[in-house]
This record gives sequence, structure tokens and C-alpha cells, in this order.
Amino acid sequence: MLYLKPEDHEIKKTITIVKLGGSVVTRKADVAKPKANLHAIKRLADEIRRAEAFPLVIIHGAGSFGHQLAFRHRLQEGFKEPSQLLGLTETHNSVMKLNSLIVKELVLHGIAAFSMPPSSLALTKEGRIALLTLEPIRRALNLGATPVLFGDVVFDEVSGFSILSGDQLMVKLAIELLASRIVVGVDVDGLYTADPRLDPEAQLIRKATLGDLRSFISKARGPASIHGSTLDVTGGMLGKLQEIVEALEMGIEVKLINALKPGRLYRVLRGEEVLGTTLVKSPRLISGG
Amino acid sequence: MLYLKPEDHEIKKTITIVKLGGSVVTRKADVAKPKANLHAIKRLADEIRRAEAFPLVIIHGAGSFGHQLAFRHRLQEGFKEPSQLLGLTETHNSVMKLNSLIVKELVLHGIAAFSMPPSSLALTKEGRIALLTLEPIRRALNLGATPVLFGDVVFDEVSGFSILSGDQLMVKLAIELLASRIVVGVDVDGLYTADPRLDPEAQLIRKATLGDLRSFISKARGPASIHGSTLDVTGGMLGKLQEIVEALEMGIEVKLINALKPGRLYRVLRGEEVLGTTLVKSPRLISGG
Repeated sequence: MLYLKPEDHEIKKTITIVKLGGSVVTRKADVAKPKANLHAIKRLADEIRRAEAFPLVIIHGAGSFGHQLAFRHRLQEGFKEPSQLLGLTETHNSVMKLNSLIVKELVLHGIAAFSMPPSSLALTKEGRIALLTLEPIRRALNLGATPVLFGDVVFDEVSGFSILSGDQLMVKLAIELLASRIVVGVDVDGLYTADPRLDPEAQLIRKATLGDLRSFISKARGPASIHGSTLDVTGGMLGKLQEIVEALEMGIEVKLINALKPGRLYRVLRGEEVLGTTLVKSPRLISGG
Repeated sequence: MLYLKPEDHEIKKTITIVKLGGSVVTRKADVAKPKANLHAIKRLADEIRRAEAFPLVIIHGAGSFGHQLAFRHRLQEGFKEPSQLLGLTETHNSVMKLNSLIVKELVLHGIAAFSMPPSSLALTKEGRIALLTLEPIRRALNLGATPVLFGDVVFDEVSGFSILSGDQLMVKLAIELLASRIVVGVDVDGLYTADPRLDPEAQLIRKATLGDLRSFISKARGPASIHGSTLDVTGGMLGKLQEIVEALEMGIEVKLINALKPGRLYRVLRGEEVLGTTLVKSPRLISGG
């Protein structure tokens, strides 16, 4: 773990942003009660601890703790009627419960994980981040703590409230904190040329540039040809790719890996080559492997 | 409940700040495991709901969920060594657990209570609030939600981290949000001339001005003569009074009541006269009773 004295106000090492998708930290629930994937959470906490790649910011998705409730109360539409307010707080509390489970496991594994709810740090304007208070995050990192954020319901300057995805948040934080890379853990091996669960010809895309990504996105907007996680309230893989464009534009490398496969997060944090998709701004920035 | 459309960006009614002391929402634990006073929390949620005195900001103390852990890891001293960091996160998680219990009960009683951890909203400088992000709190109030904050560990510009008491927070928020009054629920009937648990001659002080309060404080700094809650890591009753001075200076009325006595919070929120101590800036501002 990296420890810096409090007087060291600048973060001395470059930061890695780790995103753990909702499909990784929760189980897809057809049932009413959301369920955390505690097995995966414990293993990932261990991998993060052993990789010693601090300073880190961890962001997790809401998965089954957020999406169903958000849909039920039509939170994606913003504030329409007062009856949504209890749904808003219920959804927030549900995601906070998942967050507390994850933070608890990280702490049990020796990581000084500190929960930082986006609803208190951020405001959106029509769904896009309009305010993000970075000082508590920076101070936590300076001390050697690991901020843990998540996809959350947040207050919105126009629509009252909105759903802030972990994907939008990871890119914004990476840019603001001058992070060198974002590691995105999902439930598939990376980006495919077609849905690997439907098409046996689907090929994993190992490397792609900003130009490639833009072309994937415009194709995916038509009859879908790029697949990853299934679509969700925050836009699924297409939404993820649209966010990632901004990170690549700023020169931040993005690695998509399957975080349900043991050891992959550990190895990518150690800088080792793993199966997955590496996304960079321009071709000369793609490293070997 | 007060509902405003999101386009109403100004809070139309004056805000009341309700502080529920740690001695009210938790049980004094001589044992290792902190315990919430769920009986009191449920009753107070019902009183707050029935009083219909929205918009409200609720702030609760940490009580046995915070003080023992903070002491054990010497958090009141600030950052001294890396081993404190896990203690910091452990203490934060413990207080968050209490907060989630309280928020859950408020929501069950029909209040759109929204948890807002001070560690994400505030930074301190040598223990005093140096930054407080008000926008999420204001937006929540505008929509008709009830922000719930608490005594928390927060990051500090000088000492790394510090303990931010609910008392410091309630006064700062009251001033910034132009609140008309602060209702402070404690485990005694109000301010006494001596410790009522030790001295049968102790008299409840029903009304006091800023001048009286300053004189109480200077006396209490000597051999203690003003008593309320027992001393705790955040300064107990003396610490509370020192914070309240700032509120009175700004013309905000402060009511100290016994929130363990059924109906008192309800009645004070309704504007009715109850047993307790009313603190105001100058004598002419003291209302009858």
C-alpha cells in the first residue's frame, strides 16, 4: 500500500482507475432481492491487495442493486412526480448497501477503502457531470487511502435527479485526476466483433485505437455488431464505449478485461499481458502482446 | 412533506436543522459492539413525519458507533502513522452503518431521507470546516428530499483527517442554508446550572441569551458548572455550547430538548412550547413560555 504523509499534497504516483462492472460485483437477479457476487468481490479484493498498484480509485457498478429499482421508479426519466422521491432514496440506499459490502471486503483484505458516494460529490446537468468535488478524493489518495465510488443516483440541475453511471464517472475522474489508465472489469473477455453468446464466429478485438472505437460505435448504433455486457439502464457496452472515447482523446489507456476470470485483474494491475481489449488513442501507443 | 418542482431552485420555506445526539440514537456501549437505539430512532422518525415541518436537514451524532473506534485508533490526533488508515475506514464504515439504519427508518416512515456523508461533502483545516459542498444538499431540499448528515471522520488540509462533530456541522449548515432554527435533541432536558445526575439542586435553564451562554462557557472552562450530556470525543456539552455561540451570533434560534422523551421533538417542530432550553441572540427575541 502506498502511504504518503499528509503534508505531501500532490499525489506522487500516477493513479489507476479500476472499474468493477455491476455484472461482476452482483448477480443478475430475476428475483426481487438483489444479490451481491460476494465470491467475486472477495477474490477481487485479494487481487487488488496483492497487485500493490496503489494509488487506486475503485468504482463499481450498481448492477441488480440499482437497475431494477431505478426502472421501477422511472428514475432514468428524472423528476416527474413527488412519489418518485421515496424510490430515489430507496434506490440510493440499495446501492449504498452494495457499496458497504464491497468496502467491507476491501478493508478486510487490508485496503484502506473509503466510501465516497457520488450523490454527495457530484451534480449532473441533463445527465452529464456538471460538478465534481475532487478535494476529498485527492486528500484520501494523498494519505494512502483508496476512494471507492459507484454508479449512483445524483441530483441534476435540470431534471431534478439522474442516474450517473460508473462509466461516466470513471472517465471524468481519470481525466481530472490525471490517471494514466483505466481498467474496466466486465463479465466478458473484452470487445467482440459480434455477440459471443450468439455468434460462434465472434472474434475478440485485442487492440483498438480511438479511430477504430469511433467506427465501432457508429456501426453499433445501427444493427448491433459490437457486443459485450448486455444492455442496462446506463447504456451497456455501447454506453461504456461512448464514455471511453473521451478518455482516449485525453491520452488515457483503457483496458477491458473479464473480471470474473481469476487472476486477470491482478495481472493487468501488475502491468502483465492478459486476454482483453486494449484501447489507446493512436496505433503507435499500442504496446506488444 | 414539502415538494417543489426541480425548476424551483430556491428553497421557498425556511429550513429547520434537527440534530439527534449520539446519546439519543445509540446506546452507551460498555461492550465492544455498538448498538443503535432503534426504539428511539423509530419513534423520532414518526414524530418528524407527523410534525410536517419540512424542509428539514437531519444530522445525527456517531455515539457508540464512532467514539470508541476513534479513540482506539487515535483519530482525534490526526494522521500520525499509516496503521491508522484502516482504523479511519473502519470508523467511517461503522458510522455509515448507523446512518443507514437511521435513513432506513426515516424512509419506512415516509420521509425521503437521503444519506449525505460529510467526508464527501466537507474538508476541515485543523478540525474546522474549510470546505462544504452545499449544492447536493440544496438540490435535495429543493426536490423535497431530507438530507441526513452525521458526525463523521473527514479529510483535513493540515492534519490529514479529523473528527467533524455533528455539532460543528449543524451550525455551519444552519448559517449557510439560512436556517431559522436548530433543534438539538440530547439525553437530558436541556442546560442545567449543575449536573442533574449528581446535584439535586441543579436547575434547568429555560432561556438564555448569547451573553448568558458566553458566561456559562467561561465558567464551564473552570470547575464545570454547566452540564448536559457527558463528555465525549467531540467535546460533549461544552463543545456543543461553543458551536452554538456561532449560530446565535447569526440570529439563529437554538432549542435544546430531551429527544428521549416521547413527543418533545414533535411538539418543538410544530412550534409548540416544550420543556427545554431556548437559546437566542438577545433577550427581546425570547418568546413566551
